Parts: sequence; C-alpha cells; structure tokens
Amino acid sequence: MEQASLRDLNEPLIDHAEGQFFLNEAFKIIMEEVLSNGTDVKQKVCEWKEPEELALLLDLGVRETGEPRDKLLQRVRDVAKYSIKTSHPHFFNQQYGGVDYHSLAGRFLTEALNTNLFTYEVAPVFVLMENEVLRGLRQLVGWTEGDGIFCPGGSTSNMYAMNLARYQRFPQVKSQGVWALPRLSIFTSPESHYSVKKGAAFLGIGLDNVIFVKVDDRGRMIPEDLDEKIELSKSQGAVPFLVSCTSGTTVQGGFDPLEHIADICDKHKLWMHVDACWGGSVLFSKKHRHLMKGVDRANSVAWNPHKMLVAGLQCSALLLKDTTNLLKQCHSANATYLFQQDKFYDVNLDIGDKSVQCSRKVDCLKLWLMWKAVGSTGLEERVDKAFIHARYLVEQMKKREGFQLLSMPDFVNVCFWFVPPSLRGKEGTEDYQEKLAKVAPVIKERMMKQGTMMVGYQPLGNKVNFFRVTVFSPLLSQKDMDFFLDEIERLGKDL
Amino acid sequence: MEQASLRDLNEPLIDHAEGQFFLNEAFKIIMEEVLSNGTDVKQKVCEWKEPEELALLLDLGVRETGEPRDKLLQRVRDVAKYSIKTSHPHFFNQQYGGVDYHSLAGRFLTEALNTNLFTYEVAPVFVLMENEVLRGLRQLVGWTEGDGIFCPGGSTSNMYAMNLARYQRFPQVKSQGVWALPRLSIFTSPESHYSVKKGAAFLGIGLDNVIFVKVDDRGRMIPEDLDEKIELSKSQGAVPFLVSCTSGTTVQGGFDPLEHIADICDKHKLWMHVDACWGGSVLFSKKHRHLMKGVDRANSVAWNPHKMLVAGLQCSALLLKDTTNLLKQCHSANATYLFQQDKFYDVNLDIGDKSVQCSRKVDCLKLWLMWKAVGSTGLEERVDKAFIHARYLVEQMKKREGFQLLSMPDFVNVCFWFVPPSLRGKEGTEDYQEKLAKVAPVIKERMMKQGTMMVGYQPLGNKVNFFRVTVFSPLLSQKDMDFFLDEIERLGKDL
Ligand SMILES: Cc1ncc(COP(=O)(O)O)c(C=O)c1O
Ligand SMILES: Cc1ncc(COP(=O)(O)O)c(C=O)c1O
Repeated sequence: MEQASLRDLNEPLIDHAEGQFFLNEAFKIIMEEVLSNGTDVKQKVCEWKEPEELALLLDLGVRETGEPRDKLLQRVRDVAKYSIKTSHPHFFNQQYGGVDYHSLAGRFLTEALNTNLFTYEVAPVFVLMENEVLRGLRQLVGWTEGDGIFCPGGSTSNMYAMNLARYQRFPQVKSQGVWALPRLSIFTSPESHYSVKKGAAFLGIGLDNVIFVKVDDRGRMIPEDLDEKIELSKSQGAVPFLVSCTSGTTVQGGFDPLEHIADICDKHKLWMHVDACWGGSVLFSKKHRHLMKGVDRANSVAWNPHKMLVAGLQCSALLLKDTTNLLKQCHSANATYLFQQDKFYDVNLDIGDKSVQCSRKVDCLKLWLMWKAVGSTGLEERVDKAFIHARYLVEQMKKREGFQLLSMPDFVNVCFWFVPPSLRGKEGTEDYQEKLAKVAPVIKERMMKQGTMMVGYQPLGNKVNFFRVTVFSPLLSQKDMDFFLDEIERLGKDL
Repeated sequence: MEQASLRDLNEPLIDHAEGQFFLNEAFKIIMEEVLSNGTDVKQKVCEWKEPEELALLLDLGVRETGEPRDKLLQRVRDVAKYSIKTSHPHFFNQQYGGVDYHSLAGRFLTEALNTNLFTYEVAPVFVLMENEVLRGLRQLVGWTEGDGIFCPGGSTSNMYAMNLARYQRFPQVKSQGVWALPRLSIFTSPESHYSVKKGAAFLGIGLDNVIFVKVDDRGRMIPEDLDEKIELSKSQGAVPFLVSCTSGTTVQGGFDPLEHIADICDKHKLWMHVDACWGGSVLFSKKHRHLMKGVDRANSVAWNPHKMLVAGLQCSALLLKDTTNLLKQCHSANATYLFQQDKFYDVNLDIGDKSVQCSRKVDCLKLWLMWKAVGSTGLEERVDKAFIHARYLVEQMKKREGFQLLSMPDFVNVCFWFVPPSLRGKEGTEDYQEKLAKVAPVIKERMMKQGTMMVGYQPLGNKVNFFRVTVFSPLLSQKDMDFFLDEIERLGKDL
C-alpha cells in the first residue's frame, strides 16, 4: 500500500498555523539580534570563532529526521549570533554595509511572493516596476530612452555589456561562436574590477586579450595611453571592440575621465561601457555627479544599488542606451514553453528572453520601495553625507600621527597606511616596506578577534598592504569616524 | 556651508525606531495577504489587470520627494494584492509553486544579515554551511568527495558546467580564448532546457555547435543516436567535449538514460553533465531515485532546490565530482583586495574565487533550515507524495472525457490536451489540430481573468498547444487535483 505509508493524501504536508508561528518567532529573533543588537555600536560587529570550533557549535550536518521547533529557533538565533553584523556602523569592510528598513521590507515581501521576472503572467507588478526603476536610473545617466535589466551582481552586469558589445559588432558570434570572429581585444585599467577579467575568460575571449591601460596616482585611466594601446592592439592583428571604464574603482575610488574616453571610443568606434557598480550613486548628487561627466555618451552602464545605496544584496542594474532590442536579440532562445506568442496579453511584457538566466529573482522591489520612501533627494542626501564623512576622515588623519594617505580620495574610499610608533621616522630604512606590510594584517586580526570593527586591507601594485575604509552607510555619524581612528590607533599602538 | 544643508552629522540618516515599526507593519501585511490569504484555496491566485490599468493603480514612478508611512504601507499592500500568489495550491504554472515556512524564515534571516559568500571573514557561518549542504546533496548523488557551488539559478549552473568541461579539456582557453581551440561541440536533447543554448551562445561556443540528439516519445535522449551524432560531429572536424543530459525535462519530465549515456561519454572521453535542476529531488526518494541511476558517473550535476523542494528563489547547486580544485582554477582572478594570502585564518575558506560572480548571495541557509526542520525523510515524503498526486491526476484524466495525455508521465509533469466538447470525435478532421491549438490559450485567459488557477501550456515539436501541470507543492491535497480537473472542464465546456 503505497499510500498508507504517507500521511493522508488530503492533508497537505505543510501546517500553516505551526509554520506561521515559527515565522513570527524567527522574525522576532531577527529584529532583536540582527537589527537591534546588530546595529548597536555598543555591541560587537563579529563574534570570531575558529572554523573548527564554529562548525562544532553550529552542528551543521543535515540528517534523516527533522528537529523540534525550539531547537530550530535556537538555530536561527545561533546563525544570527555568529554571523557578521554587516549593518553595524563599524562594519567598514566592504561596499555593502548598513541597512535601510524600507528596502528590507521590500526584500521580505520579495521573498514571500517568491516569483520570477520572466513573464508578465507570473510577475505583473514586477515587470512594470523593473521598467520604471530602470527608467529612473537611466534618467540619472542622462538617457530619455534605452533598455536595461537587473542582473545577479555587478560582475554579471559587466559580462552582459561585454557580450552585447561583441554581438553588436559581430552578430554571427551567437550562432557560430568566437571561431567566426577575428581575435578581439578589450581595454580597461589595472584598477578596474576583476570581473572584467572573469568575464573575458568566461565568454571565451581570454585573459590575454584584456589590455590594461595606465592609470594616474589616483587610479584613473590615462586616455592617451588608451589611444596608444588601441593602436598597438590593432597593429598586432586584434580587433578592439570594448573599453570598460570604471566610475568608482573598488580600492581607490577613482573615476575614469569619461568624456575623454568617449572621444577615443568614438574615434575607434568601440563600445563604451562604464562600470559604475560602486560609484554610480554619485549621479543622485548635484554636487558630485560631475565625477561621471560624459557618462551619457556610454553605450552601457553597470550600477549596483546594493552597494552605496544599501538596497540589499543582490541589486545590480545594467543600463543600455540601445533602442533596437539588442539585449533580447543577443540573449534570446525563444523557448516556446515559456514565451508563447499566442498569449492574450502583449508578449513584449515577457521580458525573460533578455536575460541569460531563466529564473530571475526580483531585485527591483527593494530599491523601488526605498526610493519611494525617501525620494531622490533622500538618496542625494545620503551620497552627500558620505562625501562629508570621507572628507572629515581625511582631515582627521592629517591631524593624527601615523596615518598616511595613499592619495587624496575622489570618492568615499579612504586608503591609508597606519604607521605604528615603532616604524615612524624610519621611512627610508631597508626593511621598512616589509615591516609596514605586516601591520594591517595584525590590526585586522585583532579587531576581528575583539569584534570591535571590520575594515579591509590590500596591497596594490607596488604599494604594500594598506587599509581601505569606505564610509557611506546611512547609519554612520561623525562619532563613528572618530571611533574608527581611535580604534586603529588602539589596536596598533604597540606595533 | 556645505554641512548646514544636511542634517546634523552626528545624527544617522536612518531612524531605527521608525524603521523597525515599518518593518513590523510590513511583516503583518505579508503574513495576512501573502501567506494567509495567498494560500487560501477560497481566495484568488491572481487579480488580473491589464498592464495600463495596473501601472495606473500602482503609481510606479519614482520622484524627488519621499512618502509618508501610511502611503508606503498601502504600497506594500498593493504590491502583494496584484502579485501572483505563487504559494497558492492552485498555482500550477511553474516549477516553483508552494511555500515552506522554515525556508522562508531562512530567507528573511538571509536578507537581514545581508552578507556575501566570498570570504570567511564576512560569512563564517555560511561558508561552512554551504559546504555542508553541498556535501549533503553530493551524498545523494553518490559521491563521498567533490566540490560545488550555489549559483544564481540553474541556467548559470549549467553554464558553469560547460565552462568547466571546456577548461578541463583545454586549459589554455582561460588565457587565450576560444581562438586557441578547435571548434567544439556539445550534445543535448531537443527537450533539454534552453539554458544549454543560452550558455553556448554566452560562452562563445555558438548555437550551431549545440547538437540535438533524438528523443523517444517521453522526451528521453536516445543513446544510440548520441553515439552516432558524436561520430558525425568528429567527422565534420569538431571536437565534442560535453554531453548535457537532463533528469526531469522541463515540459515532459523525462529522464535521460544516464547509465547508457555514461558509457558513451566514457568511450569518447566527454564531460558528462546532468541537468537535474528539475528532477534532482527524486534522489531523496528510495522509491524513485532509480530514475537517475548512473548519475554518480557524471562529472557534474545541476540541481535546483528552488523548484521541487520549494526552497525559494534562487537556490541552485552545481555539484562536481572533481577533487582537483578545477572550479577555482577555472574561475579565479586572484584579486588581491579580497583574497589576501596573508590572512590570519585558512584562506582556503575564502571560496569566492570559485565563482564568476564577486558578490554572491547566500542561497544555502533557506535549504539548510528546511532540511534541518523536516529531515531527509520529510523531503522524501514530499517527493513521494508528489508522484502519488501526479498518478492520481493521470488516473482521473483517463476516467474523464476530453482529457488526452501526451504520454504516460515518468515524473510529476502531466502533459495533456483538453479536447472540448465541440472537437470530440473529430480527431481525423482537417482543421482539428488548428482548432485544438486554440483551446489552451482561451482556457488560460479565462482562468487568469477569473483568478481561479494558473497552469502553463505550450506546443512541442509537431504537437500543438497542450497543458503541462506540475504537481509537487507540499500544500497540495487530492482535492486540489479534483479541483484542477473540474476547473479545466468548467472553463472549456463551451469551446
Ligand atoms: C567597481 C566594481 N565593479 C564591479 C563590482 C562587482 O560587483 P558585484 O560584487 O555585484 O559582482 C565591484 C564589487 O566590488 C566593484 O567594486
Ligand atoms: C530542466 C531544467 N534545467 C534548467 C532550468 C533552469 O533553471 P533556472 O530557472 O533556475 O535558471 C530549468 C528551469 O525551468 C529546467 O526545467
């Protein structure tokens, strides 16, 4: 009796009352642990555990039988406890710290509605909403028409741009592959995001065909060198097709000179892509949008509201100037099971074939709700305030001993070495760089083990390990800047 | 006075009390509208509106100024109201209907914690958890070791497999691109998911190099034809490198004969990928896992717990038999700002370079929490019950007039034509097929406009429009099967 071994076939396997009770309790834990304690400067940013210890504590293995409610709620609590509090004002580690409650409400609603952005029939609200949000972002770029799509992260948005540029120039690539094309080349700066490299490898273009253009000391592409490198590449038999500029480089926060690069792209007839994943949000600010002057001349822009605008992961828009339906032509597979042409509504609303994904998460609602809540002026205020915090930090660093800036920041990334007491005044000595390189990792270890804050460090070219702090969370106040500096001093004073 | 125009620099731009109040209120709306009303069979699955009307109702445009709390809460309510209730038992439209409350709690927690799966330092819990969940899934495939990663959807998982297969065979592709390789070819069935085609185009392999192998009447690849097609492709100068089999085809739910295909892959030394995005969950069932016999001989398996297991979008695992760190070698860019080698913990825990993404959403927690809650046996029960529901549906169709099956289903997809009264007994007539093709779209339009249920239709090869119903949601009971049949009859009885 097959059926006898299962519960009654008229009894669903989900108990709504129990399930909703659980969800309610879990919500309370989230509110308390993640959103209240987790954003409280008096509480820790992280609760460091060695991996082996953490694995034991969490008892992660999956088993044959289920667990009772209380145990599961304890698991929710443990996951929250041992996870990093990325919304905490002292989480300076990455470009996605902070929280916006309207966005978060949008994310919860997205999860509950659990639908896919591929057809109007399953996502009527979101098909229209994504379109409006993209229009709003395009308007800030300076385009009154165009196209676009939300992608699972900026790396994917950058890849899309690469694929579109390739297809526009050589449409036969879709059917025949790269074999049908001459060898292509891509131009970007060495300080551009590594996703340009990943994309070139993934798309079959190859890392050797990514050509790095020189940058100035703030990490901004030098247009004259771009022009020369393009000529050189041509003379070596390659076909340049894409320049990937950056607005807001990951480490230094540099903005490539877009106007000048646009001239060169015009001259050589290259697709101009702007990776504004990090810096794009300056477009909200009347004061700072000049950093991206010329962006309207680009063919495509990648912009991650999940970074500076804290819309929540993942939220990345690829914006296109194109009005010829290139996105769909390039990516479509015309699956008849999903994109039937004999539907009772306008099938142009079935936007799924613009994507290389099939299931595609709804990433627009969180941004839309936040935007509705604070308006463009509210977002502008956040951007402007971030710049003020960054400048304050720079001014304070100049006043304190031991803080040495890499360069004057253009943006809200502040890159600096902390020179501990024992190394001060020894700049010229033989093993100075070697010793300086070891400072940041030690300070980092200490801050994490004490749980007081988190900030990233890295080497760059011939510059040894330095800290990069990004200040943009709308939770930040000037006190947090002071705390940051005090804490670096405290953690490094005996080094 | 730059600062005077902004609020006090010591006052964060986020008001936690107001924000948390809002989130609480939004949560109540979600509970009521989406989870209670939205799963109630007495309520509608959808509230159909024409796009123009919906756009007006929702007032989607973004503006300069923000809106008050009550208006925003009304927006939350409206988004919920006009969105499709994909958790509703009568949402049969796609392979992701239904809800699991534990998974949903995991998704809310994921959103609140808002971190990235690239380094141990920002995701200690999730680096370890993903590893355990992948281990659990691999074990079901029959592998005691291996590798894997969660991807933003099954299409991406399939692309990863393609890229890995290519790289394993020709490592030079990463640096030199596809130009350095002979023309490659890929083998799959015409009933495989369209992501194989999208992947081939995106990766620069080209659609012409995807070779379609014949299938039987249930949509299962015919191994003899595979062997012949491989030989033919070789004789035409291409280098076959990958067979992409399907376990659970999208439309018919067919399972390719993996053992037999594995023999052929062995013979020709090809990478064997199994797209088990839809069907993989049968591995939980002792009764039905035979459908995937031979899967342990594959090199890679893509499996979407966001489909049959209702883990929530997005949740897709790529599983690998490889133990040589191929995933990282193939995808790494070694970004020094993220993957510093002088960290104070084991940098092998910084798994980000296995991905072609940079930011990567945490997709494991929701599956993990659900798995912990019901155990493998709970998931097995869901799979087994889905099969029973599907078989019941088939039996009932045989008893009712007008329901004509495409073929006996292997899985939980039931494909059928509804032959309305006016067409019964006219099978041989000239315009029968043409008329039959028009039936499903009309019934679909009616069900959506009345909001009673949703189910998909499509043509396939020379078969005109038929319905595909997938029954797997843990919310389903036998009554819902009866409702489904009654409703199709009711909506189509005058046609
Ligand atoms: C300049 C820049 N571009 C692209 C990306 C990649 O975005 P994502 O992490 O969403 O893939 C980043 C991420 O840090 C970035 O800083
Ligand atoms: C067999 C099969 N493979 C792959 C996919 C793609 O998965 P995703 O929608 O997550 O990209 C699907 C989706 O329906 C599918 O049915």
